[in-house]
Amino acid sequence: MPIKIGIVGLGNVGKGVVRLLTNQNKLELFEHRTLKKLQLVGISARDKTKHREVDLSNSKWFDNPADLVASDIDIFVETIGGDGIAYELVRKALESKKHVVTANKALIASKGIELVELAEKNGVSFKFEAAVAGGIPIIKAIKEGLAANNISKIIGILNGTCNYILSQMHETGKDFWEVLNEAQMLGYAESEPSLDIDGIDTAHKLSILSSLAFGTMINFPNVHIEGIRDISILDIKYAKEFGYVVKLLAIAKIDDGKLKQTVYPAFVPEKDAIASISGVNNIVMLDGDYIGQISFVGRGAGTGPTASAIVSDILDIATGRNSNPFGVTSTILEEKEIFDINHHIGSYYLRVPVIDKVGVIAEISDILRDREISIAGIWQKLYQETKDIQVVIITHPVKELAIRAAIEDLCSITSVTAIPKLIRVENSFDI
Amino acid sequence: MPIKIGIVGLGNVGKGVVRLLTNQNKLELFEHRTLKKLQLVGISARDKTKHREVDLSNSKWFDNPADLVASDIDIFVETIGGDGIAYELVRKALESKKHVVTANKALIASKGIELVELAEKNGVSFKFEAAVAGGIPIIKAIKEGLAANNISKIIGILNGTCNYILSQMHETGKDFWEVLNEAQMLGYAESEPSLDIDGIDTAHKLSILSSLAFGTMINFPNVHIEGIRDISILDIKYAKEFGYVVKLLAIAKIDDGKLKQTVYPAFVPEKDAIASISGVNNIVMLDGDYIGQISFVGRGAGTGPTASAIVSDILDIATGRNSNPFGVTSTILEEKEIFDINHHIGSYYLRVPVIDKVGVIAEISDILRDREISIAGIWQKLYQETKDIQVVIITHPVKELAIRAAIEDLCSITSVTAIPKLIRVENSFDI
Repeated sequence: MPIKIGIVGLGNVGKGVVRLLTNQNKLELFEHRTLKKLQLVGISARDKTKHREVDLSNSKWFDNPADLVASDIDIFVETIGGDGIAYELVRKALESKKHVVTANKALIASKGIELVELAEKNGVSFKFEAAVAGGIPIIKAIKEGLAANNISKIIGILNGTCNYILSQMHETGKDFWEVLNEAQMLGYAESEPSLDIDGIDTAHKLSILSSLAFGTMINFPNVHIEGIRDISILDIKYAKEFGYVVKLLAIAKIDDGKLKQTVYPAFVPEKDAIASISGVNNIVMLDGDYIGQISFVGRGAGTGPTASAIVSDILDIATGRNSNPFGVTSTILEEKEIFDINHHIGSYYLRVPVIDKVGVIAEISDILRDREISIAGIWQKLYQETKDIQVVIITHPVKELAIRAAIEDLCSITSVTAIPKLIRVENSFDI
Repeated sequence: MPIKIGIVGLGNVGKGVVRLLTNQNKLELFEHRTLKKLQLVGISARDKTKHREVDLSNSKWFDNPADLVASDIDIFVETIGGDGIAYELVRKALESKKHVVTANKALIASKGIELVELAEKNGVSFKFEAAVAGGIPIIKAIKEGLAANNISKIIGILNGTCNYILSQMHETGKDFWEVLNEAQMLGYAESEPSLDIDGIDTAHKLSILSSLAFGTMINFPNVHIEGIRDISILDIKYAKEFGYVVKLLAIAKIDDGKLKQTVYPAFVPEKDAIASISGVNNIVMLDGDYIGQISFVGRGAGTGPTASAIVSDILDIATGRNSNPFGVTSTILEEKEIFDINHHIGSYYLRVPVIDKVGVIAEISDILRDREISIAGIWQKLYQETKDIQVVIITHPVKELAIRAAIEDLCSITSVTAIPKLIRVENSFDI
């Protein structure tokens, strides 16, 4: 008896999966791997008439995706995205004891625990390798390959769109909006890009990784999120000048017994491995008590990598390779107290727009001294293009609370012409 | 009923596994992951009286390891190494339908197929994640996480000892034997280091990876192997001067339908990711048709990482997660024709020791021209320390056959005072 697969959604990812599951050489390879035959039996998408360049001739078309879910399939593959109809369909599939494979990070981040409980109750697999870091098998690595470890920290670059934009700004000197426009034309960014550029997508992924790594409940609402839309080309230029690269980092750790999950753009030293991750690549670095530091680099999105991850989940199910969706039974996932970002300790880059007059640097450094903020470097610079005078400071490690207070103080003096720009500096990735 | 585990060999790796399997917090974690209880029931090693700093009190000691294998265990863990007694014990374990976990690359490289057939016949698991790249779950990644892909190329740094030695030579300017001595004192190199420094260990690992990645029979005897004991500090200095780093590379690919597996020290551009892998780290880069390029970096050896890999195999077995030891049934592994290294096409670094007289460069370049070898760069240099005059050449891509012939020609002229040194240059890792 073949394993019968149904897929809903025929965007780029869905088409990639169909391409793999209708290619004779691949089907033969999969049979050798699983000792089972795989068969794509059912398909559903919004528009049947659309030309898609994939072979749908051997699968039944369902106008109503719910009918596909209800049909005689073993594995339901969801590639619609979002937590609306996708949620309804996945729920329905799990309730009717179908295995489910999805690439849907928004769904896992918002309804993951509920769906996993449903899968456990019904004794079926619920897999989402493609939801994080595209084709990099990071979920399997955490749950299985590194299962002997207690993981203490995760650092990642998890959004290819943001990484592409920041890399391009760094390389070309063009500003954010110009590069975003180009990325949209190249298909690297959505026409409505906010999920990516505001860090939401990265936070979805981070919340999934941290649950897997730490054995904690998924907690997306408490991820501290800052996106990249306010990164000006000036900041990129300063970063470059001081030997840094700006990256949108996802960091999670258990800090003082509390769950700390942050997404923010940061200065990273240009010599660090993480600085060299350019374009649409992703990196995930983990620190485990037995493995030490380990990192994974590969394409974080796109048809091929995402389809690769989805089909690896299908092959696991076909072979009967099971694991708890979150590595351990959902009932024992811990609910941790949340780390308050105000207690974050780190170095900061502070760019203060000022008027050009005698004593400005003294005024600024007085404020920092009063807040007990130690200065690692201070520069004053005129950029011809903008005619702005900027005082730029990199601090020694200090509490976020202090730096926030200092910014308020700075805003209250007349020499400061606009709200200072704050970017965190992550000097050490010896996690 | 707990899963009963027996382990033979209590070197650093064996002790690491014992430490994991006797730690209450870890045992609890493993029970949450597998929904089974694990129990280390039996132990055997050469010397019972040796002080080992691990808790053996709850396990039975076997003076004769064969008795441990014959005892009532579910999983046999072999950490002796080599293909002598380890082979006998693993065979015996598989024959008596025990699952086997090992870190033994020499054993897999030499007897892998035979043992896998035995495991398949007896319906038990035979796992060896720890045999390649320490704690990096690369075997699981190839067999499961990337299972949808046809992999076309592998590039790796797979031996921490060699990488440490080459990194140290590069950083300190000390010569090979001095650094080797230091590495031996630090425990990074064996007192009998030839398995490592002559590239054998790297070749063992490469032959395992290429079988997994390409679906071919393990073919260790046909790996083209060159070690690092002849890398002089002069070569390291030239590499540095020209913007390269010397690394011991393991490369496997299917070239023109033939299996090409090579281990050799090479110049790699210092800006490439692979050049930044320093000390005892390993890297494995793969190129798959759907995933694109993906790479894994982590510690390639040591107690913690190796024990992490062994225990992940144990947890797979305990959970009932199965896969063919080589990803597909051993009977369908292909026997490929072997690529002849003489047909390798690449750039070369050639260092020619010469006497200092007029016309030497002309003589050398005549020889290269006659062999149709195109020169990318040529330098003549005097190193004060050695008083040697060296002509150093980097060629454009050319067939290995031609460069070998040119070296013979060079040896026949009186201006050349010793056999020229040849090192391959790997300019592009856009695999």
